[in-house]
Amino acid sequence: MNKYILSSELEFRRNNIRQEMIKEGYEASLFSTNVNLFYLCGQIISGYLYIPSQGTPLLFIKRPVGIEGENIFYIRKPEQIKEILSKKGLKIPENIMLETSDLPYNDIMRLQKIFNPKQIGDATMLARKVRSIKTVYEIEQFRLSAKKHAEVYAKIPSLYKPGMTEIDLSIEIEYEMRKEGSIGVFRAFGQSMEIFVGSVLAGENAGAPSPFDFALGGQGIHPAIPIGGNNTRLKEGMAVMVDIGGTFTGYITDMTRTYSVGKLTEEAYKAHQVSIEIHDAVRNIAKPGVICEDIYNLGMEIVARHNLSDKFMGTSQQAKFIGHGIGIEINELPVLAPRFKTPLQENMVFALEPKFVLPEIGAVGIENSYVVTENGIETLTKFAEEIISLK
Amino acid sequence: MNKYILSSELEFRRNNIRQEMIKEGYEASLFSTNVNLFYLCGQIISGYLYIPSQGTPLLFIKRPVGIEGENIFYIRKPEQIKEILSKKGLKIPENIMLETSDLPYNDIMRLQKIFNPKQIGDATMLARKVRSIKTVYEIEQFRLSAKKHAEVYAKIPSLYKPGMTEIDLSIEIEYEMRKEGSIGVFRAFGQSMEIFVGSVLAGENAGAPSPFDFALGGQGIHPAIPIGGNNTRLKEGMAVMVDIGGTFTGYITDMTRTYSVGKLTEEAYKAHQVSIEIHDAVRNIAKPGVICEDIYNLGMEIVARHNLSDKFMGTSQQAKFIGHGIGIEINELPVLAPRFKTPLQENMVFALEPKFVLPEIGAVGIENSYVVTENGIETLTKFAEEIISLK
Repeated sequence: MNKYILSSELEFRRNNIRQEMIKEGYEASLFSTNVNLFYLCGQIISGYLYIPSQGTPLLFIKRPVGIEGENIFYIRKPEQIKEILSKKGLKIPENIMLETSDLPYNDIMRLQKIFNPKQIGDATMLARKVRSIKTVYEIEQFRLSAKKHAEVYAKIPSLYKPGMTEIDLSIEIEYEMRKEGSIGVFRAFGQSMEIFVGSVLAGENAGAPSPFDFALGGQGIHPAIPIGGNNTRLKEGMAVMVDIGGTFTGYITDMTRTYSVGKLTEEAYKAHQVSIEIHDAVRNIAKPGVICEDIYNLGMEIVARHNLSDKFMGTSQQAKFIGHGIGIEINELPVLAPRFKTPLQENMVFALEPKFVLPEIGAVGIENSYVVTENGIETLTKFAEEIISLK
Repeated sequence: MNKYILSSELEFRRNNIRQEMIKEGYEASLFSTNVNLFYLCGQIISGYLYIPSQGTPLLFIKRPVGIEGENIFYIRKPEQIKEILSKKGLKIPENIMLETSDLPYNDIMRLQKIFNPKQIGDATMLARKVRSIKTVYEIEQFRLSAKKHAEVYAKIPSLYKPGMTEIDLSIEIEYEMRKEGSIGVFRAFGQSMEIFVGSVLAGENAGAPSPFDFALGGQGIHPAIPIGGNNTRLKEGMAVMVDIGGTFTGYITDMTRTYSVGKLTEEAYKAHQVSIEIHDAVRNIAKPGVICEDIYNLGMEIVARHNLSDKFMGTSQQAKFIGHGIGIEINELPVLAPRFKTPLQENMVFALEPKFVLPEIGAVGIENSYVVTENGIETLTKFAEEIISLK
């Protein structure tokens, strides 16, 4: 049915879901969120993908019209799923995994009434776990995105004009991103995580706390979306941190670079160097088997050694992670944070973003996206790491 | 606590929630989605607003730091809400309304475990009902948005260049929107409703069915977000439908206008005129008390009289509504659709979007946002309604 992704790729992904599901003791799983349908079908439909422990997955579609293929059924409502399973002589599962961390309560209650299972598992967490290990195809999507991402960041000095505000510069970068092929939509996991496409932060606004659990905040231009750049005018001596998502392929690359208006203080350059030092340290030790929490702790030790703990990942409000998995959503698994005992595995893709907030100056540091290889990690977002001066 | 909205305005909104909640027989309601928190607090926080049937609402905040005020409590986890209520000697409600149509199942289960209520009501639907009647302040936000929205649409002929694709033109319009003050974020109700900021559709792509329940579809530029403009090149004889949200104030104005490359067929101009005829008919009859379904039927009758039913709201896939409430989200209540027996009420705000899809040509028709007044409806999106030629 899919024009973009080979069916063998989709079969591989669905089989991974099936294997994990069987390991957890479930007979079936059902997916209906856009992110998981995109992952498991290669395209978004309004409907449900049903994966049984044995036999072929079935796709139940409400919209759009016109998708043909084996094991595809058009329905008006989820109650028909059970009717169709019965009609085909397939077993109604006694326990089932549903997207309980993502689908609204009322939707799950309706599905529960339909299947009346003895037990419900969390298909959201199942999918997040499976999605955390990327396929060769997915890693290629990151590479394509990273290339375009870097091309846009390279243009930033030419987009800057004296007198601009944070939001002015952000708008110019967003515009370049779109012209370069950005699909626009920037997905985050969690119903309360919202942002437009990223942020440009400078001066005091870099330290403004936001309600969202992103690395840094910023006030934003309106209380309807209190995050990111505001009308802070970019002035001599300010650091300008650009963290706008690479939304080119359905797989988001995450990259932050710091620019400066004129010259910054010695402390700013030093703190920026500490961020690079953390990247270098992680590039040295990270490989399959290394525990996420240990990477976090390594970063925190370097920060402490440089006496920068009070400026790390914010000031009045500090984020409690230094990196996170990326994929279809900007905040996938694993998380480089305390208590995350997950070991890195080959083909995980994560962003590392040690950042420092310097009062009045802004934020410094870099963020790169990395893929875990057999023996280490490889930088996806290849681009100059030093502070780039804007004129 | 809020710098933007008078506390009397917020008190009014919270009281409306409380009245409806009491009418439904509940002792308390709890809100934690961004949309409802923005509505009830004037800003987004990570946390919970607790509205009891008697006494003052309490705000429980996880993030951001630094919000001060009476009845504001910082918490790390929702379990503390009950502890704080108990400590203050407040009654633990025996039944409670939670956002069950919006909050994930697991979140509701956690709240259920905390409060152990005899009954749970749907605070999502409660809030959607209350939010459907706008306040004077909210209507003013629509007016501000509509003005900027129209200013950008007026620039569209100057943004067009021969040889452009749908997506090229869309990007130029988006860029103007941002420069005019758009906050970017475009909110839709329903976990599976996604779009970037709207769409520009022409030629065959105007009839491409999408998985989303918007008026029209379009293929989009990537299967990760299959809606809206694609790489269709704008050519002589094509209708170019622009439906990009007015996201300037937190309250989205919805406006569609049709442009043409050169001259269209007679049928296209005629169908466009039928859309305007529907608007005129609705402007004539709509007022408080008129039933939403009757407005839908009126539109369908006009369409049928002109023998255009097979092209109305799509061709292979046709939307089953001709309008919808707008507000913080693009798809609020009421809906102008079959079975919606809701009567219009003063200060409801809705978009009316009768559109026709003409194979090979594109889509024609207009969409306006209207506010229901004491005696009728008033057009918010004041802008030329005829087809505007692009050169």
